[in-house]
Amino acid sequence: MDMLWSGWGDPAKATPLPDSVTALLRDLLGVVPRGTGPVGLTDLDVPESPLTAAAHRALLDAVGDAAHVRTDAESRVRHTRGKSTPDLLRIRSGDVTGLPAAVVLPDGHDEVLAVLRACAAHGLAAVPFGGGTSVVGGLAPERPASDRRPFVALDLRRMDRLLALDPVSRTATLQPGLRAPRAEALLAEHGFTLGHFPQSYEWATIGGFAAARSSGQASAGYGRFDEMVLGLTLATPEGTLETGRAPRSAAGPDLRQLVLGSEGAFGVITSVTVRLRPLPTTRVHEGWRFASFEEGAAALRRLAQDGPRPTVLRLSDETETLIGLAQPDAIGVPGASRAGCQAIVGHEGTAEDVARRREGAAAVLRECGGTYLGEEPGERWAHGRYSAPYLRDALLDVGAFAETLETAAFWSRLPGLYAAVRDALTAALTEAGTPPLVMCHVSHVYENGASLYFTVVCAQGEDPVAHWTPAKHAANEAILAAGGTISHHHGVGTDHRDWYLREAGPLGADALRAVKRRLDPAGLLNPGVLLPPG
Amino acid sequence: MDMLWSGWGDPAKATPLPDSVTALLRDLLGVVPRGTGPVGLTDLDVPESPLTAAAHRALLDAVGDAAHVRTDAESRVRHTRGKSTPDLLRIRSGDVTGLPAAVVLPDGHDEVLAVLRACAAHGLAAVPFGGGTSVVGGLAPERPASDRRPFVALDLRRMDRLLALDPVSRTATLQPGLRAPRAEALLAEHGFTLGHFPQSYEWATIGGFAAARSSGQASAGYGRFDEMVLGLTLATPEGTLETGRAPRSAAGPDLRQLVLGSEGAFGVITSVTVRLRPLPTTRVHEGWRFASFEEGAAALRRLAQDGPRPTVLRLSDETETLIGLAQPDAIGVPGASRAGCQAIVGHEGTAEDVARRREGAAAVLRECGGTYLGEEPGERWAHGRYSAPYLRDALLDVGAFAETLETAAFWSRLPGLYAAVRDALTAALTEAGTPPLVMCHVSHVYENGASLYFTVVCAQGEDPVAHWTPAKHAANEAILAAGGTISHHHGVGTDHRDWYLREAGPLGADALRAVKRRLDPAGLLNPGVLLPPG
Repeated sequence: MDMLWSGWGDPAKATPLPDSVTALLRDLLGVVPRGTGPVGLTDLDVPESPLTAAAHRALLDAVGDAAHVRTDAESRVRHTRGKSTPDLLRIRSGDVTGLPAAVVLPDGHDEVLAVLRACAAHGLAAVPFGGGTSVVGGLAPERPASDRRPFVALDLRRMDRLLALDPVSRTATLQPGLRAPRAEALLAEHGFTLGHFPQSYEWATIGGFAAARSSGQASAGYGRFDEMVLGLTLATPEGTLETGRAPRSAAGPDLRQLVLGSEGAFGVITSVTVRLRPLPTTRVHEGWRFASFEEGAAALRRLAQDGPRPTVLRLSDETETLIGLAQPDAIGVPGASRAGCQAIVGHEGTAEDVARRREGAAAVLRECGGTYLGEEPGERWAHGRYSAPYLRDALLDVGAFAETLETAAFWSRLPGLYAAVRDALTAALTEAGTPPLVMCHVSHVYENGASLYFTVVCAQGEDPVAHWTPAKHAANEAILAAGGTISHHHGVGTDHRDWYLREAGPLGADALRAVKRRLDPAGLLNPGVLLPPG
Repeated sequence: MDMLWSGWGDPAKATPLPDSVTALLRDLLGVVPRGTGPVGLTDLDVPESPLTAAAHRALLDAVGDAAHVRTDAESRVRHTRGKSTPDLLRIRSGDVTGLPAAVVLPDGHDEVLAVLRACAAHGLAAVPFGGGTSVVGGLAPERPASDRRPFVALDLRRMDRLLALDPVSRTATLQPGLRAPRAEALLAEHGFTLGHFPQSYEWATIGGFAAARSSGQASAGYGRFDEMVLGLTLATPEGTLETGRAPRSAAGPDLRQLVLGSEGAFGVITSVTVRLRPLPTTRVHEGWRFASFEEGAAALRRLAQDGPRPTVLRLSDETETLIGLAQPDAIGVPGASRAGCQAIVGHEGTAEDVARRREGAAAVLRECGGTYLGEEPGERWAHGRYSAPYLRDALLDVGAFAETLETAAFWSRLPGLYAAVRDALTAALTEAGTPPLVMCHVSHVYENGASLYFTVVCAQGEDPVAHWTPAKHAANEAILAAGGTISHHHGVGTDHRDWYLREAGPLGADALRAVKRRLDPAGLLNPGVLLPPG
């Protein structure tokens, strides 16, 4: 099934906002319906594909079947940009600039190499496309005005197999186009799980997780995706790069970590070898309440540093707790807790292990001032954990603007980072005439720091993308100034690129440019993503 | 204090072999004394330093004091090559080819930059020098015949400070020339430990650990050094590269992992930010026995995969157990266990945590066929954990050849890798007329695999370096063929370079070359280390 072209997910799962929420938005933020929903898919004014006949033939030769080189309008629209709120606003308004010239569906590493050769020969750029869930402009190539190359979307959906599984070493080799639920299903047949459950879980792919250094909601227990990866195969215009002969090595710089996070700018990831964990037999999620964000963060830090480490560990700030966005299903549910700061604590594993860690973690949380709220808030969170993007569609429908952004820092910098980003967003959007609600949660914890995930809701204003852009820039500046990283798990894309380059520093960025020039001398891969175009 | 110039460590700690061992070597391996000990330091025929007066002045300008640019014979000899057995055999025989032209001692990042600029301006190469403990030719630059540049040893010993400590985030920033024991002492004042205890611990430095991707004997509990590093500063001929704003990030490829393992070929590491752990209050080491290496490895795998994870976890094969090299102090001690395979299991932490993990691990080890040997073998191992290199000196003194090498692989490949390397070493040295004793232990465990550490002892033969070279090459070939990595913790240097390049693959090696060309366009940094010279 394809994702909703103008929004998120399965169109059948879309639900309108409850009237209570619409009223809240109106009273609190001045959100008024704009009357215009998304334009229809067939109403879009899609220009002809600029693909030449010769290029078309070359791509056909590479993938061997007419069904795997698509130039019809719908296929191209469905591969236009990603799923950030500005992306959605643009496509909903009928803006189809930046369409791919074609969608190519290779099957296997050799076909990817052949497609890249065809692109090089025919002056095409190529954008690897997994689940299409990027929220940072990772699918929107940017070229200097002088570069008139059309681009093809390199859709990896046919590469969706489990290639190998080694139960002794607990490793599996997966193709990049595997969507996460299917990957989990294939691994579950052998009694294993990957344990990677980001909010994009239902649609995102293994290759995308690797390319963007994804982090899932159970990262406290299972680690980040980049920690799960043991090996990668990369198809580049200059040939194949293979990494990962051993779980750990002292043989030079770790090339895996050069491919992870390269966002399609160095090559197309064609296989990923990951570590596996046994399928948990027990899963439990609990709610906890803290008097303040500070108190709650101190409790999370203690568990992250001294254990016992839960599998899931999250903490909403006062505003997010009050609004109840921590659990979209509970907005308007009477009796749901709204005071202080709510935390979600989850444990997965064997029954015995879960019982031991649960008891140990509860003792620590109590010692740190936490109040146990029972399993109900936890299970409610777990049930709704992938539903926030649907909520965003409903918000856009009623004239609200909703977007998220995220960062991470060392623990001692976290309070300053939190205040700086919240203040920057509030000031910029208030100045623009659309005062926002800014909510935040700690979504991922480490021994030495944590991530902060911000959600912003405000009225759309006259031109919502133009309204948002200065606020987003202000948040990015605040992140860098307060010592955070420009992204903890969404990635760089084109949206974060300018701040990313400052974070990497001129020499760091140049080192990556040097790698790109060697692997992609024509600069055909995802131009402008991660590194500046040209 | 300086290390013994012709061997390992503190000269006062050198002890001759017990007669029982000398007899064993003679009876088992035909080792006969060669009669000639190392030549004297003052007997060496050290050529004049080729440093020009202009270059000398430029280096003086960079570091500001005549005492910090040394061209005397002893300083230069002490910075010649590293501590592999071939290195020792050469220097003991009076071979002082490949001396540095000077030893330069910068104090701080800016002075390192200035030294690199001086080197670039005066046609000098530079070899970063920490503890001088490389066993893979990491301090022995190799240049094409056409490249007649002298090189300076860039000794970092003056950069030995704790620059910052953040007890909330549990991080510290250390200078690269800090030796490990001093680093531990400085951190202990604040109640923290790094937990990094490789065999080179007493002499090796923080910068060296980072440059060579070191792994310590307590890696099961504390992780590898590359997992401890949160940030790095690199001084390159082209300026400064700084990495590590957050514990984890999705902002592009992880540049930290490009600097880690770069072995001085990309720049000089001038600061390292590391994660800290609380000082353990309890430490215990136990001995265990398994009927076979296979049975023991299965037990280690179970603990590594399902826990509870000990802090130290090692397993000697039958030969190593029989010889007792697992505990050099115990060679010849009556009653010491010699049957089957001995494992060392160590736990560090709070008393409560150690008690819990110890009990849990013991239950697993028993279930896997292990027999508990008590704390005596464990404490004996812990006491002698840094003494093996001293033993090597004593072996060389009586005419024996002793060397180690190591690799890592996924669990399912480990049995094949073990047999292949052992067989290759045995065959090559037997053919050379010096049949060896080949011993092995699992020294580091991970969820998905483990390392193998081999010790080879044989007679020196006519020309011990020439005897060893084909055996070492055969072992390297066996490692690659059996799916292992060419080094798990010793690094690449010049000794492993040719096999490393095959492991990285042509495109991977080219990506690193591209980085080197950008950061070190003149190729002045550690020429021939990691990447081919020129």
